[in-house]
Amino acid sequence: MIRKFTFGNPFPTEAVVETYPAENVTLPYFSIENGSFSCTLEPNAPVYGLGEQVRGINKRGWIYVSNCTDEPHHEETRRSLYGAHNFLIVGGETPFGIFLDYPGHLTFDIGYTDSNVLTITPEDWNLDVYLIESPDGLCSSIVHLFRRMIGRSYIPPRWAFGYGQSRWGYMDEKDIRQVARGYLENGIPLDAIYLDIDYMERYKDFTVSDERFPDLPGLVSDMKKEGIHLVPIIDAGVKIEKGYSVYEEGVKNNYFCKEADGTDFVGAVWPGRAHFPDVLNPEVRRWFGRKYKYLLDMGIEGFWNDMNEPALFYSEKRLKKVFEELEKFKGQNLDLEKNNAFLGLVNTLANNPEDYRSFYHEPGNGREKVRHDKVHNLYGYNMTRAAEEAFEELEPDKRILLFSRSSYVGMHRYGGIWQGDNTSWWSHLELNIKMMPSLNMCGFLYTGADLGGFNADTTEDLLLRWLQFGIFTPLMRNHSAMGTREQEAYRFSNREALKRTIQLRYCLLPYLYSEYMKAALKDTMMFRPLAFDYPKDAEAAQVEDQLMLGDSLMLAPVYRQNALGRYVYLPEDMLLITSSGPEDFRCRKMKAGHHYVKAAAEEVIFFLRKGQLLPLAAPAANVAETDTSHLTVIAYPGEDCSYTLYEDDGISRNYGSPDNYETITVNRVGIASCYGHRNRTVCAIKIKD
Amino acid sequence: MIRKFTFGNPFPTEAVVETYPAENVTLPYFSIENGSFSCTLEPNAPVYGLGEQVRGINKRGWIYVSNCTDEPHHEETRRSLYGAHNFLIVGGETPFGIFLDYPGHLTFDIGYTDSNVLTITPEDWNLDVYLIESPDGLCSSIVHLFRRMIGRSYIPPRWAFGYGQSRWGYMDEKDIRQVARGYLENGIPLDAIYLDIDYMERYKDFTVSDERFPDLPGLVSDMKKEGIHLVPIIDAGVKIEKGYSVYEEGVKNNYFCKEADGTDFVGAVWPGRAHFPDVLNPEVRRWFGRKYKYLLDMGIEGFWNDMNEPALFYSEKRLKKVFEELEKFKGQNLDLEKNNAFLGLVNTLANNPEDYRSFYHEPGNGREKVRHDKVHNLYGYNMTRAAEEAFEELEPDKRILLFSRSSYVGMHRYGGIWQGDNTSWWSHLELNIKMMPSLNMCGFLYTGADLGGFNADTTEDLLLRWLQFGIFTPLMRNHSAMGTREQEAYRFSNREALKRTIQLRYCLLPYLYSEYMKAALKDTMMFRPLAFDYPKDAEAAQVEDQLMLGDSLMLAPVYRQNALGRYVYLPEDMLLITSSGPEDFRCRKMKAGHHYVKAAAEEVIFFLRKGQLLPLAAPAANVAETDTSHLTVIAYPGEDCSYTLYEDDGISRNYGSPDNYETITVNRVGIASCYGHRNRTVCAIKIKD
Repeated sequence: MIRKFTFGNPFPTEAVVETYPAENVTLPYFSIENGSFSCTLEPNAPVYGLGEQVRGINKRGWIYVSNCTDEPHHEETRRSLYGAHNFLIVGGETPFGIFLDYPGHLTFDIGYTDSNVLTITPEDWNLDVYLIESPDGLCSSIVHLFRRMIGRSYIPPRWAFGYGQSRWGYMDEKDIRQVARGYLENGIPLDAIYLDIDYMERYKDFTVSDERFPDLPGLVSDMKKEGIHLVPIIDAGVKIEKGYSVYEEGVKNNYFCKEADGTDFVGAVWPGRAHFPDVLNPEVRRWFGRKYKYLLDMGIEGFWNDMNEPALFYSEKRLKKVFEELEKFKGQNLDLEKNNAFLGLVNTLANNPEDYRSFYHEPGNGREKVRHDKVHNLYGYNMTRAAEEAFEELEPDKRILLFSRSSYVGMHRYGGIWQGDNTSWWSHLELNIKMMPSLNMCGFLYTGADLGGFNADTTEDLLLRWLQFGIFTPLMRNHSAMGTREQEAYRFSNREALKRTIQLRYCLLPYLYSEYMKAALKDTMMFRPLAFDYPKDAEAAQVEDQLMLGDSLMLAPVYRQNALGRYVYLPEDMLLITSSGPEDFRCRKMKAGHHYVKAAAEEVIFFLRKGQLLPLAAPAANVAETDTSHLTVIAYPGEDCSYTLYEDDGISRNYGSPDNYETITVNRVGIASCYGHRNRTVCAIKIKD
Repeated sequence: MIRKFTFGNPFPTEAVVETYPAENVTLPYFSIENGSFSCTLEPNAPVYGLGEQVRGINKRGWIYVSNCTDEPHHEETRRSLYGAHNFLIVGGETPFGIFLDYPGHLTFDIGYTDSNVLTITPEDWNLDVYLIESPDGLCSSIVHLFRRMIGRSYIPPRWAFGYGQSRWGYMDEKDIRQVARGYLENGIPLDAIYLDIDYMERYKDFTVSDERFPDLPGLVSDMKKEGIHLVPIIDAGVKIEKGYSVYEEGVKNNYFCKEADGTDFVGAVWPGRAHFPDVLNPEVRRWFGRKYKYLLDMGIEGFWNDMNEPALFYSEKRLKKVFEELEKFKGQNLDLEKNNAFLGLVNTLANNPEDYRSFYHEPGNGREKVRHDKVHNLYGYNMTRAAEEAFEELEPDKRILLFSRSSYVGMHRYGGIWQGDNTSWWSHLELNIKMMPSLNMCGFLYTGADLGGFNADTTEDLLLRWLQFGIFTPLMRNHSAMGTREQEAYRFSNREALKRTIQLRYCLLPYLYSEYMKAALKDTMMFRPLAFDYPKDAEAAQVEDQLMLGDSLMLAPVYRQNALGRYVYLPEDMLLITSSGPEDFRCRKMKAGHHYVKAAAEEVIFFLRKGQLLPLAAPAANVAETDTSHLTVIAYPGEDCSYTLYEDDGISRNYGSPDNYETITVNRVGIASCYGHRNRTVCAIKIKD
């Protein structure tokens, strides 16, 4: 049951697609005092949710703030990341869900100040609160209700389930061709190369450097012949430059965010001084969205939207003030206090809260202008919405790949997200694992982290172990920052193991695509905590480093340096699958309970659930070349197993027809069959019972 | 066997106390080319050592730099921390040790560039290399040989094994008294309160603020009545201030480090502009060391030496240059490149390598002056040596507590170290665990981390779990930074659990002191990786989050948020001890192998080895009040167990007499006895076999 409670005059975020009448009774579960909602937490009961956030699947024990932030460090004591996903499930005897539809700064103290108290504090009292209760008391039912309420998740083209390579620092066409060649010559599959800010002319959106990319359409076309899609980045800020059409049009039509006095707000990002399209306004969204056509017309079929928290290096006004202030420190003895003040001046230039309070949006539809900080968390959402709404118009019969850095609940309908600018830390591989189910709860299905880590230098085994997890995440992209160790898979002495791991992704494609589409079309979670599938199992509730993936699999990634195995908890009997690459699937039945499972550096381990099966394709050079007409099936031995396979053309916007579903069965003696509208042969791998 | 190889003209670090002739043959194991030593690593063979460094017990897979650095972040991709401990054990068929006695910048690429190659690169070729081989091929034997070669580890007074409370931000006498009262009123034991920089007058060494600490001797004496020692901090830099005697004397006598032109080098730390005592010179050491008398005379019995990498906020010359450079950015459009240059100017002011190349030491003894960067890693070592050499003269019959932030091998003879300015991260609790055996290898026995974490806000369960590990580390100190959540144990809603955990420390005191003294007096490791005790056990070699502690115990700390248990590997049958505080020791025999062991938030779990026993005292308010004449003993049931207890007066410098050793036995039916020179009663806890 979903109940809505309205406080004050909320800004219409359009996160929720269904209409609910607001109730006039008091909000149950919570008491409201001192400007906060509070409720008691049962001892040791978990709290789930918050989507893109730091720490565990169980969010208890920390204080989090929904405040979309360019936060490249992600340490566990940070309070905000790039997204704002205000959905929680409060566990205990009778779990319930709560969604706070509030686009401003929102604090969740989940057993931090007092270990048994949850306190939620908005900055003001204009918000909608939705309570979600399920008669069966299951967390998965609560998520399902919430997901139905916020609308269907974004569906990318099928090629976007291939492996992609990215780096901030591919400076020109030559670099791109070299990366493509590196992969092709080493026989490593590849579906996409990402273009970071380097492809643009002086970091201007919807421009391409003439000098460094003299013929982007030609390059796009050449790459496509190799099965590789180029995916350019688009930034939120528009460079201030006379004669630059996007800037000129924006100024002329009042499309940029303005300060209180009506002048266009000046913040700085990559190009320096920039204006920010007022994407909360439908007319501006339509204008900005149609700008993507410039690149679509060059053959581009996918984009990533960046810096859309929006990130600010500085505002012009603040920078001026800081330079004046700096003068005062000249020639002085900078002791602790003065040195901190001096450094503080410079190091609070970026993303300064005062700057976010200095500009405004004109949301249109007769609504009054609104100060940015009040709706801060909607910016990336609406920038991405602008693009996807334009794509629906420009390419009505074709899915365009789109994902964003910043997001709010609701944006999951328009695009995916990547998990931000992480670092080459083992702890960020672990965070990647833990974030998957939390994001799925909030509707973000098309997601993944920068494999190998974006900032800092990766290591051979970190990249390998991360790819071993990344082969399961819908977005599978290796990305790294300028100045760090080169991170393409073919550059490492363990390249053979990296290659064989990436090949596995393509074997898994029929399963991953099926599970993605079923989760999107049925408002369910592709990645789930063990506790969701085994709600009565107290030991499963403790597990934070294993995940249920779709109908058939349980993942147990290795995420420790130099580890040659790991502990795994099996809530029921399962089949251990150990693989070092395609055609190496060693299977062993294991009993429910705790186990130490070996996994050499080049081995990925995962588990098949009792009574389930896993369809596998032969490895291929890319998604388009993956032959799904012949599938090999691993079935849990000695039982009747069946599986619902989903397949469609992978590119049109017509999905979900009943014809797209097929049933694969393997009976207890190992005979495999497939029922559906396609000609498909399936063959079961023989496994000793 | 220890073999010495000399390259060029090494600076005499005095790290090694034994004399070895340099060999004229080629260095075995390694090839030397391109300015580096290289050797092949066997696949999956571990590499141990490096003392205070990031990452695991097994150092393989990363690139480390010995370059003492004020590094408050400690993420896993940092390359240097506060210490330089150039000792490695290269594992494999026949493990060997290598110590590079080299006080400059030294790089260890341990399977980072190529996973099977170790490459060591000094900045120049003036160094001594010691190869350490043991006929039995055991890592523990290699460590023992190395430790004998570098001399006996520092021994603190016994009260330094008590629990201490610290915070940067105890501003005055009132704050100190309030903390003492907080502990006393809550019945939580306490042996020390640490004074951070706030006690000084404008951060001047060997001064006390008249205004905020009008009667430090009186405060010291009042606290002592409660069993609490005050432990002030001493910084490396000496404030430049006319009339301040330490400054005046230093200038007059040429005791400070000088630039090439002979002027005193000006760097800045807490007080702003400061000079740096040239502690590499014996005369300066004697002068600086005797300054501690100022505080000894007030009744102080312990110190911590800080900022002695030495840390630099800026150099006067660089700051001037930066202000000039900043001018050029005024009014400009700061795009990516210019903004990075602008921020880079300010954010490379601190600890700039160029500044370390701009001043010199006069080491005396007829040696030429030497540029600081060539001997950088010796600074903290010699500052601490200055103090301890003075204490030996000033207090010949009394041990003074002394530990340092920066260190080099050799400093372990003069003081302990704390593990630097960590953060309230679960990953730093884990790092604390992993650093203990690495530090022990290099002679640093008196050590521990800032429990609860120094930087950022701690959480209730992090502090509790960290204390549950901290009760076992010789230095057991709760320390936090200004501006962070207050971290005294009595401030939290789980204070009862925190109290009972701290009480356990005092129960463990007879064991911990015995093990510390045996390790110091016999050049062995108090904390050991499991692989050292079970060298033939391949599964033990994989364990990085359990430690052997002394003769009897194996630790398996819980270091995960919200965890109610953990996996443990037992290399042999052991006795699980679960305790929530004194008089709650639940024991259960467990079989060798892998286990999941439950541990509620307030429960510490640890293991008693087969055939061993653990002596326990009753809980007490502090070390002095701990009654060791009546001991309770937990013995591994059903076997004859014996234990060597060590006890002395805990304060004099006479240790190690045969009279200090006693033997406790418990026979297989549970009868306990004690043989020694003291009247001591022992009584075994009955445990079901």
